[in-house]
Amino acid sequence: MPTETERCIESLIAVFQKYSGKDGNNTQLSKTEFLSFMNTELAAFTKNQKDPGVLDRMMKKLDLNCDGQLDFQEFLNLIGGLAIACHDSFIQTSQKRI
Amino acid sequence: MPTETERCIESLIAVFQKYSGKDGNNTQLSKTEFLSFMNTELAAFTKNQKDPGVLDRMMKKLDLNCDGQLDFQEFLNLIGGLAIACHDSFIQTSQKRI
Repeated sequence: MPTETERCIESLIAVFQKYSGKDGNNTQLSKTEFLSFMNTELAAFTKNQKDPGVLDRMMKKLDLNCDGQLDFQEFLNLIGGLAIACHDSFIQTSQKRI
Repeated sequence: MPTETERCIESLIAVFQKYSGKDGNNTQLSKTEFLSFMNTELAAFTKNQKDPGVLDRMMKKLDLNCDGQLDFQEFLNLIGGLAIACHDSFIQTSQKRI
């Protein structure tokens, strides 16, 4: 039985493989693949964005080497950024309750 | 129903809360909490390390601001590093098969 952390590491790899493999090269997320990932896996986040340019700007910000694609490290920065935002909001909510 | 990515973000926060909350302050992993996390959640990794100093050195390397604790960002760097190592090894194994 894998632990929760091991399952999570496996999930991150599986999700990246799933979306990055859509156009053949499964080591990079193209812009189309990134949009597909965001609109499927993180639809709860994307559907609340009123600004239609937000995903374009996210992709540009995440693409640190500016090659128009996201590699696994750049993808993990996205997941990490979202996790930190959720964690901070969780901590603030807990502190307000005290 | 949360998506696989959402479940994963929730898991990362829950695991960090679980181990960092052991000594009261649930925004930082102390050295003891880090060892408890590594030996429980990543036992498959730690039990294969023959060098007893490896966890000490990992903690020092991850503790970017050198405060003797790991915050959530530093914890995510650990998870990201492990995910990248697993992903690289997966890609290399796939390429050898072709």
